[in-house]
Amino acid sequence: MALPHDYPGEACSLARTLEIVGERWTLLILRDAFYGVRRFGDFAAHLNVPRAVLSERLKSLTATGVLTRATGSAGRDEYQLTDKGAALWPAVRALVAWGDEHYAPRGPRRLFRHVTDEAPIDGSGRCTVCGAVVGPEETLVAPGPGLPAPSPQDDPVTATLARPHLLLRPVRG
Amino acid sequence: MALPHDYPGEACSLARTLEIVGERWTLLILRDAFYGVRRFGDFAAHLNVPRAVLSERLKSLTATGVLTRATGSAGRDEYQLTDKGAALWPAVRALVAWGDEHYAPRGPRRLFRHVTDEAPIDGSGRCTVCGAVVGPEETLVAPGPGLPAPSPQDDPVTATLARPHLLLRPVRG
Repeated sequence: MALPHDYPGEACSLARTLEIVGERWTLLILRDAFYGVRRFGDFAAHLNVPRAVLSERLKSLTATGVLTRATGSAGRDEYQLTDKGAALWPAVRALVAWGDEHYAPRGPRRLFRHVTDEAPIDGSGRCTVCGAVVGPEETLVAPGPGLPAPSPQDDPVTATLARPHLLLRPVRG
Repeated sequence: MALPHDYPGEACSLARTLEIVGERWTLLILRDAFYGVRRFGDFAAHLNVPRAVLSERLKSLTATGVLTRATGSAGRDEYQLTDKGAALWPAVRALVAWGDEHYAPRGPRRLFRHVTDEAPIDGSGRCTVCGAVVGPEETLVAPGPGLPAPSPQDDPVTATLARPHLLLRPVRG
């Protein structure tokens, strides 16, 4: 019998990766973590994700070392990307870019710019002016043409992201 | 009540993207499509994916315009990436790279090289020698240190990929 070699066992690193991040809510939670969302309630309000699902996904991302959980200054649990988690940025950015290309008829909701010169970042993750590969810690997320106008009813994360915001910087404080 | 703005409705292009590709089997099927797998039976044998799941995923990827289905030269249905589907390569490559970094203790199973100079492709998708952004049609997938030794029992896709192979080129014929 022919044996499949790229089966989703431990030997296939992509299969293992997708067990960790290959799911819609997980990737949306990770994107929000890049935006600087750290608190359970902020993820819940911004994504409208069912609380049981959010709780399970945060637990799993913490167990696999993608997020770390610690008590924040306000005495509440805060979730932050580890270095391993932050290394997912090129994948998250590429998925956002593909979605913007195909499912954003009014243009992207959010634009990514290099913080040092505010130039747009290209499809391969490089600054279109200085040519540097731009990591998340140097990436500004700014409102794009597809973003709805701000409203007093906006959740706190949406309100913060209505202005340019450095990735990984907490949306609160 | 605060209204979530980045909720997974039609307005959020990442959520829409992840409805299409945010699932483990879907991304493994897409990766195999980049490797040049086109036939139902080849996907099934290479990935060891349950046939009902594979059938459903291929149907969904065809309905969303990521794959196209046509009758191949052997008179069987063949699935191929559309331009929209091929534009997912940076995301797939970035996920593979992250997996290799964290879940490939013996080194990557597969290496990606620029076909024109056989130089490795870096983390941002550029050739490490000529600096070009390398699309899938110019990318060679070659065996890496983590790939098990070939065996006479290998399925046809695994056997083809035991040698360097240009992405998108059919694994058969």
